[in-house]
This record gives sequence, structure tokens and C-alpha cells, in this order.
Amino acid sequence: MSQHPISRFPVPAIADMPEDIRTRILAVQEKSGFVPNVFLVLAHRPDEFRAFFAYHDALMDKPGNLTKAEREMIVVATSNANQCQYCVVAHGAILRIRAKNPLIADQVAINYRKADITEKQKAMLDYAMKVAFEAYAISDADLATLKSHGFTDEDAWDISAIAAFFGMSNRLANVTSMRPNDEFYTLGRA
Amino acid sequence: MSQHPISRFPVPAIADMPEDIRTRILAVQEKSGFVPNVFLVLAHRPDEFRAFFAYHDALMDKPGNLTKAEREMIVVATSNANQCQYCVVAHGAILRIRAKNPLIADQVAINYRKADITEKQKAMLDYAMKVAFEAYAISDADLATLKSHGFTDEDAWDISAIAAFFGMSNRLANVTSMRPNDEFYTLGRA
Amino acid sequence: MSQHPISRFPVPAIADMPEDIRTRILAVQEKSGFVPNVFLVLAHRPDEFRAFFAYHDALMDKPGNLTKAEREMIVVATSNANQCQYCVVAHGAILRIRAKNPLIADQVAINYRKADITEKQKAMLDYAMKVAFEAYAISDADLATLKSHGFTDEDAWDISAIAAFFGMSNRLANVTSMRPNDEFYTLGRA
Amino acid sequence: MSQHPISRFPVPAIADMPEDIRTRILAVQEKSGFVPNVFLVLAHRPDEFRAFFAYHDALMDKPGNLTKAEREMIVVATSNANQCQYCVVAHGAILRIRAKNPLIADQVAINYRKADITEKQKAMLDYAMKVAFEAYAISDADLATLKSHGFTDEDAWDISAIAAFFGMSNRLANVTSMRPNDEFYTLGRA
Amino acid sequence: MSQHPISRFPVPAIADMPEDIRTRILAVQEKSGFVPNVFLVLAHRPDEFRAFFAYHDALMDKPGNLTKAEREMIVVATSNANQCQYCVVAHGAILRIRAKNPLIADQVAINYRKADITEKQKAMLDYAMKVAFEAYAISDADLATLKSHGFTDEDAWDISAIAAFFGMSNRLANVTSMRPNDEFYTLGRA
Amino acid sequence: MSQHPISRFPVPAIADMPEDIRTRILAVQEKSGFVPNVFLVLAHRPDEFRAFFAYHDALMDKPGNLTKAEREMIVVATSNANQCQYCVVAHGAILRIRAKNPLIADQVAINYRKADITEKQKAMLDYAMKVAFEAYAISDADLATLKSHGFTDEDAWDISAIAAFFGMSNRLANVTSMRPNDEFYTLGRA
Repeated sequence: MSQHPISRFPVPAIADMPEDIRTRILAVQEKSGFVPNVFLVLAHRPDEFRAFFAYHDALMDKPGNLTKAEREMIVVATSNANQCQYCVVAHGAILRIRAKNPLIADQVAINYRKADITEKQKAMLDYAMKVAFEAYAISDADLATLKSHGFTDEDAWDISAIAAFFGMSNRLANVTSMRPNDEFYTLGRA
Repeated sequence: MSQHPISRFPVPAIADMPEDIRTRILAVQEKSGFVPNVFLVLAHRPDEFRAFFAYHDALMDKPGNLTKAEREMIVVATSNANQCQYCVVAHGAILRIRAKNPLIADQVAINYRKADITEKQKAMLDYAMKVAFEAYAISDADLATLKSHGFTDEDAWDISAIAAFFGMSNRLANVTSMRPNDEFYTLGRA
Repeated sequence: MSQHPISRFPVPAIADMPEDIRTRILAVQEKSGFVPNVFLVLAHRPDEFRAFFAYHDALMDKPGNLTKAEREMIVVATSNANQCQYCVVAHGAILRIRAKNPLIADQVAINYRKADITEKQKAMLDYAMKVAFEAYAISDADLATLKSHGFTDEDAWDISAIAAFFGMSNRLANVTSMRPNDEFYTLGRA
Repeated sequence: MSQHPISRFPVPAIADMPEDIRTRILAVQEKSGFVPNVFLVLAHRPDEFRAFFAYHDALMDKPGNLTKAEREMIVVATSNANQCQYCVVAHGAILRIRAKNPLIADQVAINYRKADITEKQKAMLDYAMKVAFEAYAISDADLATLKSHGFTDEDAWDISAIAAFFGMSNRLANVTSMRPNDEFYTLGRA
Repeated sequence: MSQHPISRFPVPAIADMPEDIRTRILAVQEKSGFVPNVFLVLAHRPDEFRAFFAYHDALMDKPGNLTKAEREMIVVATSNANQCQYCVVAHGAILRIRAKNPLIADQVAINYRKADITEKQKAMLDYAMKVAFEAYAISDADLATLKSHGFTDEDAWDISAIAAFFGMSNRLANVTSMRPNDEFYTLGRA
Repeated sequence: MSQHPISRFPVPAIADMPEDIRTRILAVQEKSGFVPNVFLVLAHRPDEFRAFFAYHDALMDKPGNLTKAEREMIVVATSNANQCQYCVVAHGAILRIRAKNPLIADQVAINYRKADITEKQKAMLDYAMKVAFEAYAISDADLATLKSHGFTDEDAWDISAIAAFFGMSNRLANVTSMRPNDEFYTLGRA
């Protein structure tokens, strides 16, 4: 059977994209060796593309106490719960690379409670899952639990915002039927 | 009993905000007569503030087939399902104003299936609720249903993106315990 | 688009109603200035009407420790969770009036955990929501939690019975597509 | 281990009950040979007792197209879904007697889709379960489905009201930990 | 209306079954006075039949701290939650016999929290229900709770395996529309 | 942080296992180059081990219309929905090998609706998921849908039994905290 396309919606040619978007995409391509499909799929809407990646960078590339690997753990755990193929496959690859651990992404995706991560990281993911599925019930007690594991209030904001942002991303990827690049499946497994 | 504060996290003074953020907030204040708390709460994180409002504007202020009132209907219906006090109260006010209808916001929030809206609008909200709660199951059949009601593929993207973006917003508002301004409760009810 | 009718089922003319029902309805009209639609919709079944309002009065008008406003909080919180337009709009109005607070009804409806109410009242609503959605799991521990907040066993019965009765009412209103009177939307907001 | 009492709340002695309630209870006792515990448990609150049984009789004893056995099927199916021990055991007994079928109550309680009942009765129970768990989504299409099976609009009201009333009853029985009389378990099984 | 057949799939004649299966079935028939339908329905697949009953016997007939009645309680409680008519009716009969208690099966099936069983047995069933519906979240804390009630680790395995095995059995019975034998409904009620 | 052990329960040494179990394990080891942990973890209970693998083989190694890869798809899709780390990782490897497709396991696990499989295979997985989560509602209509895709009644039994058996296996793996062997993560990805 044939592979499905990378998006249910039209995908612009790189040459036809606005200058700033083309520039970003070419930079990613040079660095990674391929263009992750999320860039191509969202380029259908340039203004949304710009806001999406500005938000992404503000959460994932900023300084902070959470390591890069921990941020990716949040993405991977919540994205599998949301059944988002693109996000689990692509961010699973990034998590393996960030953590220098070829097993961790599958473990965290399927059932983080059984993953080879610290108790503190499990508490982080318990909280992130509550943000993803029951944010209405987040209370002072949840923040206190995070604190008891050594997280600050700023860390709580970071975990919350990452879970919330990727909840949006999961929905966009599912609606567009965004296809993960083949490259992601094996990155970081060696 | 006393009112709870506008955020669980620190809120910067307007005078201390970066220039561009202060400018935007003062413009809103001049236009509306008050500063909606979402601006103050998110200003705690300037980069996230900028990306959030850029995204918001890209979805809510862009041209397109969906009316401004219809976009607000999507926000109000999904936000009540997510139990987001700030979003229902604030966007309920905007919906009443956009639709010039003092009853519509409460109707759409509580049970849009019983609201005084068109069958086409109910189909739009059925779809938006599926994006909010079961995006993993969105299929060609859902897009075909929208099309049978006269929506284009670009409209489908718009509805999806608004439901997804406010899903993020709902989670942020619930985590921060963002308080709706008192002004919103009565706006557009006269 | 036109407004939907007040019931999916036939609604009798006041003049054709049994004497006792007509008398009650006229008394309400004189007191309130309008006839709440629940009286007209349920009058289609006189015996059920009589039992419904006898039950209502036995719970809502009886003496007891719960204030009138607190009883309405239970109605408003559980009715929004049940997506009952009539009950949230009508009892939201009564709650605003009883509590002399124009903001409280929307707060309690959307997410009572963030409302300007006391911790004791939040415990009352936590319990009422459990009666509404997981009554099978109510245990001695739940009663003990209520007691720790100062509620008596008789208060527990009251909260339970109000949540249970309005759970019935929510279902009847949703099945009949009972329309809230326009008057309710603004009552108590001034 | 010892049996738990018939209610978590105080139960009045029959001699101490108001005249009308005592009279009704003694009549039931004479007819059935025992006093079903629901009468004793609810007598703790005389006004609620009166309204409860008036409502019960208005739905279960009225003329109408639904047979007495069909009304009990609605009670039994929805009460097991609500995990109400008293209602399943007591109304299961009544269903066996009304239907003159010793197997039907357990079948309907556990999974009515596999019970020895007609397709029309299964459609009735599908609808009743939707009233019990998703009344907010009941639409014209549901009423049309009932009609296609030969039910009238008045029948639809009856099914809805029975499901809604016993939803209340299930919650009261669970909160009070109402104990089914031993007699009910075997009635109608011979 | 006519009774539905004992399986949605073909059921072999006893005379046509493989020797070992026929022998087992005839032995059960001699002991019980009838052939429980599960033997006939599963005999459609001889290899699966052999594995199924080997597994059943390994869990239900082995020595261990759990009494025979307690093992049946696990079956009855989880099977009603899975809406499995065959398992609740057939194992309900066995539970009544094992426990020498005509009321216990209906109590445990409908709401074990209200059954006339010990606190230790309720803890066993709380745990079994978690295995049946949220096994992914079983943690050291759950095992510790069991231990606090006097259960050993081997008991925890037994409870888990019984809940898991009958979860499989419930699904098979529902898919095949396995009909409980009429005999089971009254066994052990005298 | 250190890796968690392969089971929460005691694991026997291969040398101490009963002859038949040791023989089977050594054969697997010779064929695969390692001993999948499920063999070691379940060997704690020899009788259950024997029944488990007899059942497994009766479903997964038997002749039939479903290909070996299709049977593994059922395992992988339902096991991720049940959050079973061992089953998704181990059977994901087998699926990649059987299907000679390095991408298919992750696709099927995360959201089979977006996987590179046929429409017929998606119908198979829709049905398998219904067996896993709503077997009580499986009806003639579900079987008819399978038939419309070219599946026979015997195929329906196979799909059902595989989903049901691995539902048991998922629960056992989650309760024992069964650890997937490191080897499985990369098998079939080259």
C-alpha cells in the first residue's frame, strides 16, 4: 500500500515560501540533513508558522532548570496520550539524542511510570499529564507536590506551558495528518 | 471571602514591561477601557506573550469565511468543556458583542446543541469539539461533513487551529488560575 | 435564525391547566414578573409537575444549615457539568440574587474551584460533583471530609439530595430542550 | 462479617412516622409481606418521602403504552450502570414478576444488548441509557429512532422521565447505602 | 420473543469433539448435572479450549491464601464492570455456593463497596478493579495497600492474574454472545 | 539512574525451572539470541506459564487468513492503548520483522488510523480496539462491517481472541512491571 502524503492540506514548495520562512527551513535542513515535515505542513499558513515556531523556541530553547531532555520527555509522554504520530516519532528522536539514551523515548511514550527516569522526572510527567487532561483541576496541592520534588514555580510554568503548547501541536498534527519523516524513526537509536 | 488574585504566578507592573508589550497593553486599555488580565498574566514571560498574541491575531483577526462571531463561538464552546473560567467569561463577552446577541454566549457555552445558532454553526461546533477532545480520530469523513455544510478546507483549518490554540490557552489559564476581569461579565448583555 | 420553542413536547395554555397548577403558575408570575418556562414545560404532565415542585420545595425551601445561595451553588455547578442550559441560566440568576454577587454564578458554573467562595463551599461542591458523577463510590471517607469542614450529617443529606434531584431535572430539561426565559440571563447582574 | 444497616442515616420507627406515611407503609407491608427498605430510609425526611413516591407513582403506575415490565427494564438497566445495589435488586424482583420471566432481570441488568427482549425494547434501553449518561446530546435523531421502532412522543417522555427519576433514586440509594431487603433476591425466580 | 442461541459462532456436537475435550465436558456434566455453555462455545476452537481451561484451573483450583469464594468475588465484580452476562451469571452461582451465601453474588456484582464482605475483601476488589481498568497505573503503593490488609506478594499476583484472565474471558463471552445456562440463575439461592 | 529489574516479583534461575519450561526457553534463546523477559517473568508460575504460551501459540502460530504481521498489528495497537511497555516494544519488533517494514510498528502503536496500512487493516484494528475497550457493545453490525471488508467469521474470532488474550497479557505485564529486553528496541529497524 502507498504511503499517505505529509499533509491533508496543500503544502507549498520551498521556493514559493516567504523569505523568512524559507531561510529558517533551509537552515534546519542544513543542520539536520532533512526538513522535518512540520515546517512544510505549517508553511501553508505563514503567520501561524511564525507564531508557532516563535512559541516553540520560547519554550524549548530558553534557559531554565529543566534540561532539554526533560522538556522532550514532556512532549513525548503527552503526545502519545494524545495519539499524535508526528510528535511522538519526531520528538522521540530528539529525546533519544538529548538524553543520549536509545531506549528512553519508547519507554516514556508508552508508559512513563515504568521508564528508566528519576522519581523527580516521574513527578514532572504526572503533573504534565494532569495539565494535558485535567488542567481544570490543577490546584495548590499539585504545585506543592512539584515543589516537594525540587521544582520551582518557574519550572511549574515551564512544564505547564510545554504540555499546553504540544497539546495544541498534537491536535494540529492529527487534523493535518502530518506524516513523520522516515529519518526520525531511527535517529538516536544506535 | 476575598477575591483570588489574577494569577498564581508573579505579575509584572506595566511600567516594568518591555516596550513592545507595554505599548500593546496600553493600546488595548485605550480601546477597551481596561486591561484584560490575560495580557498581565502572560507578560510574566515576554517571549511567550509575544508568540501567544501573534498566534491569537493570526487566527482571530485574519480574513476568512468564518465570521468573527463564529470564531468566538468555537472559543466559548470548547473553553467551557475545558472548564476555563477566564476564556468563557472573556470570550463570552466578545461573542455577545460580535454577534450583537446578549443570550448567545451562555447558550453556546453550556450546550451549543440547544443554542439559537444555525445548523451549519452547530456542525462547526461538533467538529471543533472533536478537535478538542478526540483529534486523533478526525478523518476524511469529518472533513466531508463540514464540506456538506458549505465549509471549505481552509475553513476546516481555521476551525481546527482555533480549537487547538484555545485548548492551549485554556490549560494556561487554568494552571495560572487566571482571573477574568469583572468588566467582562456584563459586556454585551444590555 | 429563529429561536427554538420552549419545549420539544406540547405546552398547554395556562387557561387549560388544572386549577392547582394554574394557581401556582399565576402566583409565580405575579412574584417574578414572568413565568419560568420549567412550569410551562412540565405542566404537560400534571401529576409529574406536582411531584416535581413538591420535591423541589422540600429541598430548596426547607430550613437547614445550607444557605439559599449555597443550595443554588450546588445546582449551578452540577448543572453545567451536565450541560443543562435551562438550569444553569435560571438557577444562575437565582444564585446571583441569593448571594447578592453578580459574578458568582458564572464562576461556579464554569469552574467552581476558581470561584470566589469559601474553602468549605468548595468542599461542598467537590462532594456534590461526586454525587452527580460517581455516587456509587461515596464512602464514609467522603462524609468525614464534609464533617471536617463543619457540615453535619443532615447537611450531607441535603447536598446529596439537591445534587440528585437536579441531576434528574438536568436530564428532563435536556430531553425536552427546555428553553431558559430571556429574563434570566441578566437578572442579578446589575 | 455482619450485615451493614439499611441506611447510613437515622431510620425512624414506623410508629413515629407521620400518619400518611405510616399508612402507606403499612399498606405496602400488607400487600408485599414486608416493608421495602426504601420506604424506611426515605421516611427520615417526610416531605421528600411524599414527593418521591408521588413522582414514582406518576411514572410507574400511570396508564401508557409502555408495559409495567418495560418500565422496570428501564430501571434495572440504568440502575446497574449506576451501580445501585438497592435499585437493581428490588426492581429486578419486580421485573421478574411483571414479565413472568425468572431470567430477564439479571440479563437486562448486566448487558441488555444480550437479553431475551425484543429489538424494540433494546432500542428503548439504548435511548434510556443515553438519557442516563449523555442527556445533553439527545437530539431529534434520537426521537426519530424511537419513532421508527413504534414509540410515540409520549412514550419518549415516559422513558426519559423514568430514566431521569431513577437516576436520582440511584444516587440517593448509593449515598444512603440503602440495603436491599433479603426478600427481593429470590422473588420471581421460581 | 425467542431466546438467542448460546453462541454467535458454530458450536460443535459433543460427539464430534476431540477425545480429551469430550471427556472433560462429560465429567463436568456428570458433576454439575448440565454442561456450562462456556465449554460448548469454546470447543469450536480445541487448542484455545485446552489453553483456556488449563489457565482457568491454574488460577482457580490452585492452593493459595485466597479462598475459593474470594477468587469468585474477583470474577463477579470485574465481570459486571465489563458487562459480561455469562461470567456474572455463571460465576455468581459459583460464588453463592462457595460462600454459602445466597445474597453475596448480586451484592458484589452491582456494587462491591456495599456488599456484606470484609474490609480486606473490599481492598482486594478495589485492587482487582484497578487491574481491570487501569493496570498501567498499578504501582508500589497499590501493592503496599494490599500488604497493609494482610495480603502477600503471591496473593497480589493471584488477584492480578484472576482479574486479567477473566478480563480476557469477558471479552470472549461478549464477542461470542455466550449465553448463560438457565440453571445458573438460581443455583445457590435456596 | 539505574534500570528497574525485569519483574516486581521473584524471577527463577533458568537452571531451577521445570524441564519443559527450561527446554522451551533454551530453544527460544537459541533461535533469537536472547531470552525475551516474558518467559523469565512468567516462569515464576509454571502452570500459568504453560497455559499462557499454549494460548499464545494457539492464536499466533495457527494457520488462518490473517497474516502473521496482521496479528502483530492487533497486539501493537491494543497494547499501546493499554500502555503496556513490554508488549509494544517486543511485539513492535516482531511486527517490523514480519511486515519487513521498519516504520510500521511505531505508526500502528501511536495512531493506527494514520499508519501505512490498508483500509481493510484499519477496519481490523477499529474492531480490535472495540473488543479491547467496549466488547460489551460488539454487535451483528460490527461483524457485518468486518465482512464488508472481506473478513470471515473465523477471522473475526481470531481478531477478537488476539485482542482479548493480549488484553490479559498487557495487564500481567503492567502489574509485574515487566521490562522489555534492550534488544527489542532496534530489531527490524535496519
